[in-house]
Amino acid sequence: MRALSRENGVVGVVEREIPRRPGEALVRVRLSGVCNTDLEIARGYADFTGTLGHEFVGVVEEAAAAPETVGRRVVGEINVGCGACALCRGGDARHCPSRTVLGIVGRDGAHAEYVALPATNLLVVPDSVADETAVFAEPLAAALGMSERVDFGRGRRVAVVGDGKLGILCAWAAQNAGADVLLLGRHASKLERAARLGVRGETSDDAGRLRRAFDVVVEASGAESGFALATTLARPRGTIVLKSTFHGAPTWEAWKVVVDELSVVGSRCGRLGPALDVLASGALDVASLIDDVVPLGDAPRALARAAERGVLKVLLRAPAP
Amino acid sequence: MRALSRENGVVGVVEREIPRRPGEALVRVRLSGVCNTDLEIARGYADFTGTLGHEFVGVVEEAAAAPETVGRRVVGEINVGCGACALCRGGDARHCPSRTVLGIVGRDGAHAEYVALPATNLLVVPDSVADETAVFAEPLAAALGMSERVDFGRGRRVAVVGDGKLGILCAWAAQNAGADVLLLGRHASKLERAARLGVRGETSDDAGRLRRAFDVVVEASGAESGFALATTLARPRGTIVLKSTFHGAPTWEAWKVVVDELSVVGSRCGRLGPALDVLASGALDVASLIDDVVPLGDAPRALARAAERGVLKVLLRAPAP
Repeated sequence: MRALSRENGVVGVVEREIPRRPGEALVRVRLSGVCNTDLEIARGYADFTGTLGHEFVGVVEEAAAAPETVGRRVVGEINVGCGACALCRGGDARHCPSRTVLGIVGRDGAHAEYVALPATNLLVVPDSVADETAVFAEPLAAALGMSERVDFGRGRRVAVVGDGKLGILCAWAAQNAGADVLLLGRHASKLERAARLGVRGETSDDAGRLRRAFDVVVEASGAESGFALATTLARPRGTIVLKSTFHGAPTWEAWKVVVDELSVVGSRCGRLGPALDVLASGALDVASLIDDVVPLGDAPRALARAAERGVLKVLLRAPAP
Repeated sequence: MRALSRENGVVGVVEREIPRRPGEALVRVRLSGVCNTDLEIARGYADFTGTLGHEFVGVVEEAAAAPETVGRRVVGEINVGCGACALCRGGDARHCPSRTVLGIVGRDGAHAEYVALPATNLLVVPDSVADETAVFAEPLAAALGMSERVDFGRGRRVAVVGDGKLGILCAWAAQNAGADVLLLGRHASKLERAARLGVRGETSDDAGRLRRAFDVVVEASGAESGFALATTLARPRGTIVLKSTFHGAPTWEAWKVVVDELSVVGSRCGRLGPALDVLASGALDVASLIDDVVPLGDAPRALARAAERGVLKVLLRAPAP
């Protein structure tokens, strides 16, 4: 099969074996989504080797442990725990110290014709949800997952820094949870697209007037300057949610966190079930965030396109069977 | 009067006017404590100008607004709010955006013969508490203040990184709140002195085996390496308390905060009342942390002494009236 792979630091579409793994299901991929983490991995983040990609929708072809899923359309939780440690036994494979993570840590990902995952990681997609919508289950889950860590209830004043696809989903998620949300970005075109999803936004140029105005600030830009802005926007004893994967070791004004007694809360993956429920409800038109759908064989072009200024989601379409 | 002052970047003992401020009490200082923040300020932190020092015990000489305090021994809350903003009206002068802070922000401090503070900032010291004990009210309050931000209840596994005077007080405070505490440091002599206060400690050389072992890690070293160690000690979804004033803009591996979904919680000042209660109870022999008592006139020598390896608390003694 073909797969977008990183090997010896080189990223390209290569021929790979179909990933049949003992005890795991085999899924034929239909669509996969390009995430900023893919771009970071392509640049060397975590020195990943193997097939990239962790957002997908596909059809189960083989599943010895769950034969009833064969032929069903599915999305998949991306963390695979050891199943034996205290965290896994407590239901939190997301933090298992020996976990693999689809297309990110020690496990081939979904920018390929086939992907393998334990059947327990798969969730069946309702028929009413189109592929182009279902493929957003993972990033939307990541945005909704913030609510496991932070209160976005009614009356909470929330700013989201960064108008990329993650920032827009985070702003929508916080608003959906009841908060009063302002999205701050640098791209008029992206802010307009967020507005069409009901998310109020403005450019961050004029954010100086909003000093200490927010209970919670979500950092979704992945930039040092975004974190610095977040520390000025948060009220004393307010919360900053770190949602982006920061590459390397950025600097931070730690003294501001001490002096204003801020809480900086990391948030990574969510759970796909609630995300599928939102997508099935039709409350969020994620497909409007798609800028391009590129054949898997042209995956490097898709990465380049996803990195362009003003572009939100780029999808890869695997060849039909 | 004489005062340890920083002016035009130069730190030294100079002659100053006695600080009579309208509406404020005048306190004749007996002892003041050298804090690491003083050392940072002497090096240029926050570009402070004026008299240094924010830990003191003294006797009220004038107090128009509270004449009953004249002649009493007092310690003082160091934050002075505007009194008018929403935070001040809610009782939180510590985060008032226009606050002054004794010897730190826009207000002459206590390494002097006299110090001025609003009478409402003063707390009378019980007769049973010696000057050498009472002068620890402020730093002990800062340590106890962590409990406003973090749960140190029974069964919580807590590590404190940094065996300086702040780290030792933080370890004691967390233990006193019920937690199971380990102090990690680099100085056998300091760890021994912590042990005499009932705080279990060890050198951080062997901390590698303690990966992910703690619910809460208190960063009290003020060093980049201390924060990096804290991120390895904290369990997934654990908490790191930032207790030190970090100078400048250190680097941090923000991705670890995201991947392990840590919470980084800043903690600055506490409240002096509970600290005085602890000191009056005799539960904590803070005087054992004193290495030297230096006459105010030799204050620069006291700063140098406080910066020496292995030294914990250095006090300044103002001349008797």
